[in-house]
Amino acid sequence: MKEKVTVVKVGGKIVEEEASLAKLLDDFATIEGYKVLVHGGGRSATKIAALLGIESQMVNGRRITDKETLKVVTMVYGGLVNKSIVAGLQARGVNALGLTGADMDVIRSAKRPVKEVDYGYVGDVKKVGGDCLSTLIQANIVPIMAPLTHDGNGNILNTNADTIAGETAKALAAHFDVKLVFCFEKNGVLRDENDDDSVISSINPEEFKQYVASNIIQGGMIPKLENSFDAISAGVGEVVITSSTDVCGLGGTHVRK
Amino acid sequence: MKEKVTVVKVGGKIVEEEASLAKLLDDFATIEGYKVLVHGGGRSATKIAALLGIESQMVNGRRITDKETLKVVTMVYGGLVNKSIVAGLQARGVNALGLTGADMDVIRSAKRPVKEVDYGYVGDVKKVGGDCLSTLIQANIVPIMAPLTHDGNGNILNTNADTIAGETAKALAAHFDVKLVFCFEKNGVLRDENDDDSVISSINPEEFKQYVASNIIQGGMIPKLENSFDAISAGVGEVVITSSTDVCGLGGTHVRK
Repeated sequence: MKEKVTVVKVGGKIVEEEASLAKLLDDFATIEGYKVLVHGGGRSATKIAALLGIESQMVNGRRITDKETLKVVTMVYGGLVNKSIVAGLQARGVNALGLTGADMDVIRSAKRPVKEVDYGYVGDVKKVGGDCLSTLIQANIVPIMAPLTHDGNGNILNTNADTIAGETAKALAAHFDVKLVFCFEKNGVLRDENDDDSVISSINPEEFKQYVASNIIQGGMIPKLENSFDAISAGVGEVVITSSTDVCGLGGTHVRK
Repeated sequence: MKEKVTVVKVGGKIVEEEASLAKLLDDFATIEGYKVLVHGGGRSATKIAALLGIESQMVNGRRITDKETLKVVTMVYGGLVNKSIVAGLQARGVNALGLTGADMDVIRSAKRPVKEVDYGYVGDVKKVGGDCLSTLIQANIVPIMAPLTHDGNGNILNTNADTIAGETAKALAAHFDVKLVFCFEKNGVLRDENDDDSVISSINPEEFKQYVASNIIQGGMIPKLENSFDAISAGVGEVVITSSTDVCGLGGTHVRK
């Protein structure tokens, strides 16, 4: 039987405010067994960029990453946010190691081709070093992954944190029984977006299609769920979409085959 | 017989300009066998801090690191500079891993006590995880160390890169035959600071005392040499002070017992 690993993805807001970050790190430290944390940092990037006189341009919720913006996200995601988390977890007895995709070549990506939109220095994941990550994890090291990858030609690329979490979970599925927990600002996938208690506790692809057809599930939740079904199909044992206060993925929406 | 490891320290300027960084990475990639790179980044930190409206205060060549400055150096050293080097080395076939002292707890430090000067969030190195670094190195991973450490209580601390290089070399001496190469803007320790060809090719503590007494060696070169003698006494096999174009430490000043 494979050993268990929990991959937790947390969004920007929770890791960017001192009090909520402390609570998150307390919670994450209590997860038993092997674990991985994938973080965002978009709000800080937008703030620092603004202070540096760089305007943040978003298209479909994704950041247009020109050369100057790439420097900002490399600083903020790879430096400020990542190292705050690493130091905070070390203080809680978790042997954290901050990683971008460039470190030990753990995530190789390709610059997104220019179609209707030129996203700039944005990477689509090509390969995750599952063996390398697995070796670290089995040595009781806890990877803390920033939403940055590299193209193998010396370029860092800005990469969506949900995608990094999903692809990492899939790559680890060859080595571990993987639980993937997407934490965000809602309690899960909601039947009624104005009612935080209307969590859909379980969903499969058939139900998903029906919810989308009836406009109950829409917007950014669609790629999040597609990502989740994709992970399940690729061997991830369990995917949960839940609130940032539930890093263990006990509540929220459980995504099923 | 112990295997050899080369620990190279490079200053800020060379890693902060695209052309000189590319040359440095080319040179570093050619170093045979196990290796470690320790980098600075002060000029970029000063520049970014200025853009963010934070004034850089230096005392005795050391940066006064208040809370906002700490954020800047964490971004610049741990993110921008470190990850540019890591991605650039991966493109050259070097399996680089960027580290601050917080990552895997490799360098624990204590906040410098306030005496005549309050340096703020500046750390004095207490413990280097030589076993952990040694395990990485023997797995053919090349640590790229930013001048940041942590106190074990969740705080990142700004730490002098020369000190990190020296302490890392000393910690590795238990596992390897260590060569420590300090690269900087001069060709080595000079007899005449206006003559780049006046390199003192070899120096021991006795000669050092004489050079200091006769004012031939002065200023920032004194702690650099004291650091070097300290490393040699602690078991480091060879210390070289040389130019940034000589990362292998073939020329320059060889520091002897």
